Amino acid sequence: MKALVLEEKGRLALRDFDIPGTLGPKDVRIKTHTVGICGSDVHYYTHGKIGHFVVNAPMVLGHEASGVVLECGAEVTDLKPGDRVCMEPGIPDPTSRASKLGIYNVDPAVRFWATPPIHGCLTPEVIHPAAFTYKLPESVSFAEGAMVEPFAIGMQAALRARIQPGDVAVVTGAGPIGMMVALAALAGGCAKVIVTDMAQPKLDIIGAYDGIETVNIRDTPAAEAVAQATEGWGADVVFECSGAAPAILGVADLARPGGAIVLVGMPVDPVPVDIVALQAKELRIETVFRYANVYDRAIALMASGKVDLTPLISGTIPFEDSIAGFDRAVEARETDVKLQIAMPE
Amino acid sequence: MKALVLEEKGRLALRDFDIPGTLGPKDVRIKTHTVGICGSDVHYYTHGKIGHFVVNAPMVLGHEASGVVLECGAEVTDLKPGDRVCMEPGIPDPTSRASKLGIYNVDPAVRFWATPPIHGCLTPEVIHPAAFTYKLPESVSFAEGAMVEPFAIGMQAALRARIQPGDVAVVTGAGPIGMMVALAALAGGCAKVIVTDMAQPKLDIIGAYDGIETVNIRDTPAAEAVAQATEGWGADVVFECSGAAPAILGVADLARPGGAIVLVGMPVDPVPVDIVALQAKELRIETVFRYANVYDRAIALMASGKVDLTPLISGTIPFEDSIAGFDRAVEARETDVKLQIAMPE
Amino acid sequence: MKALVLEEKGRLALRDFDIPGTLGPKDVRIKTHTVGICGSDVHYYTHGKIGHFVVNAPMVLGHEASGVVLECGAEVTDLKPGDRVCMEPGIPDPTSRASKLGIYNVDPAVRFWATPPIHGCLTPEVIHPAAFTYKLPESVSFAEGAMVEPFAIGMQAALRARIQPGDVAVVTGAGPIGMMVALAALAGGCAKVIVTDMAQPKLDIIGAYDGIETVNIRDTPAAEAVAQATEGWGADVVFECSGAAPAILGVADLARPGGAIVLVGMPVDPVPVDIVALQAKELRIETVFRYANVYDRAIALMASGKVDLTPLISGTIPFEDSIAGFDRAVEARETDVKLQIAMPE
Amino acid sequence: MKALVLEEKGRLALRDFDIPGTLGPKDVRIKTHTVGICGSDVHYYTHGKIGHFVVNAPMVLGHEASGVVLECGAEVTDLKPGDRVCMEPGIPDPTSRASKLGIYNVDPAVRFWATPPIHGCLTPEVIHPAAFTYKLPESVSFAEGAMVEPFAIGMQAALRARIQPGDVAVVTGAGPIGMMVALAALAGGCAKVIVTDMAQPKLDIIGAYDGIETVNIRDTPAAEAVAQATEGWGADVVFECSGAAPAILGVADLARPGGAIVLVGMPVDPVPVDIVALQAKELRIETVFRYANVYDRAIALMASGKVDLTPLISGTIPFEDSIAGFDRAVEARETDVKLQIAMPE
Repeated sequence: MKALVLEEKGRLALRDFDIPGTLGPKDVRIKTHTVGICGSDVHYYTHGKIGHFVVNAPMVLGHEASGVVLECGAEVTDLKPGDRVCMEPGIPDPTSRASKLGIYNVDPAVRFWATPPIHGCLTPEVIHPAAFTYKLPESVSFAEGAMVEPFAIGMQAALRARIQPGDVAVVTGAGPIGMMVALAALAGGCAKVIVTDMAQPKLDIIGAYDGIETVNIRDTPAAEAVAQATEGWGADVVFECSGAAPAILGVADLARPGGAIVLVGMPVDPVPVDIVALQAKELRIETVFRYANVYDRAIALMASGKVDLTPLISGTIPFEDSIAGFDRAVEARETDVKLQIAMPE
Repeated sequence: MKALVLEEKGRLALRDFDIPGTLGPKDVRIKTHTVGICGSDVHYYTHGKIGHFVVNAPMVLGHEASGVVLECGAEVTDLKPGDRVCMEPGIPDPTSRASKLGIYNVDPAVRFWATPPIHGCLTPEVIHPAAFTYKLPESVSFAEGAMVEPFAIGMQAALRARIQPGDVAVVTGAGPIGMMVALAALAGGCAKVIVTDMAQPKLDIIGAYDGIETVNIRDTPAAEAVAQATEGWGADVVFECSGAAPAILGVADLARPGGAIVLVGMPVDPVPVDIVALQAKELRIETVFRYANVYDRAIALMASGKVDLTPLISGTIPFEDSIAGFDRAVEARETDVKLQIAMPE
Repeated sequence: MKALVLEEKGRLALRDFDIPGTLGPKDVRIKTHTVGICGSDVHYYTHGKIGHFVVNAPMVLGHEASGVVLECGAEVTDLKPGDRVCMEPGIPDPTSRASKLGIYNVDPAVRFWATPPIHGCLTPEVIHPAAFTYKLPESVSFAEGAMVEPFAIGMQAALRARIQPGDVAVVTGAGPIGMMVALAALAGGCAKVIVTDMAQPKLDIIGAYDGIETVNIRDTPAAEAVAQATEGWGADVVFECSGAAPAILGVADLARPGGAIVLVGMPVDPVPVDIVALQAKELRIETVFRYANVYDRAIALMASGKVDLTPLISGTIPFEDSIAGFDRAVEARETDVKLQIAMPE
Repeated sequence: MKALVLEEKGRLALRDFDIPGTLGPKDVRIKTHTVGICGSDVHYYTHGKIGHFVVNAPMVLGHEASGVVLECGAEVTDLKPGDRVCMEPGIPDPTSRASKLGIYNVDPAVRFWATPPIHGCLTPEVIHPAAFTYKLPESVSFAEGAMVEPFAIGMQAALRARIQPGDVAVVTGAGPIGMMVALAALAGGCAKVIVTDMAQPKLDIIGAYDGIETVNIRDTPAAEAVAQATEGWGADVVFECSGAAPAILGVADLARPGGAIVLVGMPVDPVPVDIVALQAKELRIETVFRYANVYDRAIALMASGKVDLTPLISGTIPFEDSIAGFDRAVEARETDVKLQIAMPE
C-alpha cells in the first residue's frame, strides 16, 4: 500500500510501504478517510526528532484520522464493518499500573502513531484496537472526525482544569492547540474565554466564535486586559498554550486568588517560573500530556452542536498531493489552522 | 411602606409594613424592581410552614429580587447609588465555622429572606449587605436579574455534580427548579441533557432549548430512554428534581458505572432508597442546599448569552395585583414556569 | 487437586476438583498459603446465593488469599517464582469502558473469585493474572497477606471518603468490615475514629487500637456521643457499615455541615432515607463496590507498620478442617473477627 | 506593656510598646504564654523586609503563640476567660470575595501578625478575634500550642496535596517547615515519607520518627533513592520544601506518572522549571500560601497523639532574654528546629 513516509529529516516520500501487523481478535481494520496534519508531524519532517524521540528509520506519518471499518476481529462486539469511526492514536498496555489507574496516557509503554518507531496512519488502511476506535454519529463528518484528535487535547486541558460552571478562562496563545483549548473550555462550562496572541489573523479566526474575546498583546498587556474583564479579580483558569517564556513568567498575574493554571504549551528547555507569585495566590497548576478517556466526550460535544470545528479546517489536500500539503504546513501561514489530507476513495 | 404580607396561613395582605433595620456601614439600601414568586413563598401561603419553619407572625414574602442601589453604607466600596443589582437572600454569620470553610449556605445561623421569622423583599425598599448584592451587567435585564436566585439553585446543583466537559446528564422532573438545573448543567459543560416528566407542556417549554432532549415517562420509562441515548452505558450525572418516591427508588438505573446522582428534589418524608443498586455502580450522591458562591457565576453565564432565562418568565404582575399573582401561582398551571411581580416605579 | 467445594446451599465438600484453566503469557501459577473466610463465602454456604448471584453448580469457595509464585507466563516481568504474594480476586476486562476509566471494579464483565459461576481459591494452586498479583514485603506475613483483601474494602471506603488530614470519622457497625474501615480511616489521615455498635465484645476488640473510641449505642445514642466528641459540630465523615435501617435513617445526624457519608453496609432491600436531612447539611454520599487500585496502598500501610491487622485474626484452621472452620464462621461469634484457613505446605 | 520590637533592620529592643486596639464584641483579650520564633521573624530582623513587605517603622515581632483568655467581647460565645488557646495570626476581611470562597488565606486584605505594618504578639497581652482563636485540649501543652502555627503550614501542604491513604511522599528539604510537612503528610495518610537534605543533623532529627526515611543527597541522588523505594514508579506526592533551584529543576524525576508536586519552599527569584518533564508525567502542581481552616485539624492530630511535635522544640528562652534567643536563631544551628520564648507568668 501507498503511504506518506518520512524517510529521514527533511525528506518525505509517497511510496509503497507495508506496515507490519495482523488483525487480532480485538482489533479492527479501517479504511482511512481523512487525516489531519499535526504540528508534531511537521516537526518530525523539519527537525527529525522531538525531544528524545528520534526518527532513525523511515516512518509513516499521521495520527489524526477518521475512516470506515472494513473488518472486525473475532471478539469485537461494539463495531461492525461499515461503521464510520475515528481513532485514538495512542495504544497503552491495558494492564500497566498507569492504565489500571485510568491514566493510560502516561503509561510509559504507550505506542503512539507517528512517534518513532511507531508508524502513523497516512496510508489507506490501518489495523487498530477496537477499544480505541470510536463511532462517529451521523451529524459528525469525516473531516470533523479527523479533528477529534487535536480537539481531544483541548478536552484534556479542560478536564484537568476542573472548570466550574461560569468560570472565566484565559488562553494564552492562539495556535491550533490554543484554539482547541478555548473551544473546549467554552463548551466545557466557561462563561467566557479570553484568548491572547500577537497574530491578529489567528485572533480573528477564534474571535469569530460567540463567547470568545480576543486580546492582541501587541496593543494591550494580557494582565491589564484580564484585570479589566474581571474587575481586578483575575481569571478562574489560565490555559498557557504559547509555550513562550514571557507568558509563563507572568502567568500568575492573570489568575484570581485560588485559581488554576493549565500548562499546555511545551517550551523546549526549562524556563524561569515565578514560584512565589504562584504561591501568593495559592494557585493550582495542572499539566497535560495528550489525553485519556476524552474521545467519547469530544464526539458528544461535536455531535450535539456545542462545538463546531469546521471553521478551523483551512484546507483539504488530496493524498497524492500530501507532500505539497506538508510543505504548506511548514509555511505556518497565520490563516491556516488545520490542513487535512483526503485519503483515496 | 407597602409590603406583601402573609398575615397567616392562607391570608395575604398588601398593606403598610415597616421592616425594622438601619443601614450599617457595609450595607446598601435598594429600591426593588422585580421580585419572582417562588414555590416556597406559595407553600408558606398555602400551608403556613415548610418543615420546622412555621409562620407564627405576619411575614413579608419574596426573596427573588433585582433592584437599584439607593444608598451605600460608609464602608461600601464596590457599589454606588444607581447600580443595577440583584440580591442573594441568605445572610450568614461571616465568621461561623461553616462560613470560614466557604460553605456559608449551611451555616446554621443564616438569615434567609421570607423564611420565618425573617422578612422578605416584596416591598419597595430593602437594606442588604453589600457582600451579598451583585451588580447586573448591561445585558442582563431586571427581570432576568430576579431570575438569578432560582437559577442559582441550578448552578449549585451543577457545581456539586462536578460536571466534566461532554457529560450526558439526566434531569428527572421538569418543574421550575428542574428546568434551572437542566440549563445550568448544559451551560456548565454537558453535551446533552435529557429531561423527564409526565407533563407534556413542561417538557415542551424546556425541550425548546438546543441541547435538551425530553422524555415523557408516560410513554417511555426513563431508564429505557437513557439506555438508548447512551448505548446502554447510562448518564454521567442524574439530577433528581422530582422529589417523587418512584423516581428516587429507580435513580441508580439511569446512571453509568461510577456516575453521580444529585438530589435536588425534596421529598417531605423519608423515602425508600435502593442502596445496593447505588453501590453496584459505586455512584456518588450529592445533595444541594440553596447555594453559595454562585451568584457571580450565574450572572456571568447570563451576561455572555450562554443561558437565556427569559422564555421561562411566564407572566409579570404589577405589585398592586400581587395577591392575584400569588393566587395564579397556587393554580400551578403547567404552562407557568415563573411569575414575577413588578414593583412600583 | 483437593478443593473446598460448595456443592449446593448448605453442603460443603473437601474433595478433588480441578478448576479448568491454562497459564497464559501474562499469568502466574501460585501455591496458595493462607485463605481467609469471608462473610460472602459463608452466605453462599448458608443461603446458596447473594442477590442475583446464585450457586447453580458446585463452586470452589475462597477469595482472600496469599501464596507463593510457582511459575510465570512468558510475558510476566514483575514477578518470579518464589515471590511471596497476595491476589486481588476480581479480574476485569482491561479494555472495557470502566477499566479504561480506572474504575475496573464496576466493569460489568469482572470475574470475581467465588462469585458464581467463577471458582475461588480454596485449593492448593491457582492461576491468576500477574497484573492482579502483588508482592508482599518481608515485613508482611502470609496471614497478613490474606487480610489485604478485606482491608482493601476499608481502603476503598477511606479513598472514596476523600479524608482530609485531621478529620474526625464515625464508623457505624463494628463487624469485620467496619473494623477494616475504621483502621483504614485512621491510617488514612483521620485524627480520631469513633466506632459504634451494640456488641460490646466487638467494640472491645477495635477499641484496643490507639486513636479509636467506641460507643455502645445500647448505652448512648450515636448522635449524642458524636455531638459531644465534636462540640456539636458533627463528624467530617460517617462510614455506615451496619447496613441497618435505623442507622441509615439517622445517618445525617452524625455528620457536620458539608460532611460526607460513605455507604459501606449493604441492606438487602430498599430502606427509608431522610433525604431532606441529608440536604439540610448538604452532605456528600459515597458508595463503595469492592475496590480498585488499592492493593498496593493497603500493603504499603501494613508494611510501614501504620496498620496492624494481626489482632483481628481470631483463628487459623488447617485446610483439612476447613468445613469445621466454615461451621465456626456460621456461628458468628462476637469474638471472632477473621478466621483463616492454612493451606497444605 | 513590654514588647519585643524590631526598631529597624538589625536592631531589636525589649521595651515598653503599646499596640493600639480595643476589645471589640467578637474579640478576646489573651495573656500570651509561649511564642515561637519563626524564620520570617528572623528574616525581618536580618534583612528588614520580605519581598515587598518592608519594615518602615518599629514593629512588634512574633506570630506563633499560645496563651490564656483573659476577657471576652460581648458576642463571644465559644470561649471564656481561663481557656487555654492558640491563635491563628492572619485576620481576613470575612466578607471579601476570597473569604466567602473559604480561601481567606489569599484574601488580599488579610492582616497578619508581624507582617509590616501589623504588629505581632511578642508582648504579654494581645487582642484577637474569637473566630481565629482555638481552644487547646488538656493533652496539648502551651509549648505545643505555640507549634500549631508552623505545623499549620505542614497541614496546608498535606491538604493541598490531596493525599490518598497509603501514598508514598517525598519531602525535599529538612528545615523546620520540611519537618512539619513530613509529619503532617505522615499523619495525614501517607504510608511512608522520604525526607531528603544535605544536613545530616536535620535528617537525624526527623528520621527518628517512625514512618519517616531519610536520604542524604550528598550520598545518594534523591531520584535514585526514590526510584529504589518505589520500584521505579516514583512518589505519589513530592513536597518541595527546599526552595533550592536544583531541587526544583529535578522535581519531576521524583514523582510517579499522574502524581503531585506541592511547592512549599519559596525561592526568592524566578527559577528554571522543566515544564516538559512535568507534562510527560501529567503532574499536578499545588502551591501553598500560609493556611486556612486547618487549626482545628492540626490540634486534633496533636491531641490524639498522632503527631508529637515536642521533639522539635529545641530550646525555650525567657522573654527577658528574647534578643539573645533571636541571635541564636540567626545562627541557624543544624540541631535547632524551633526556638520558643516563654512569656512572663
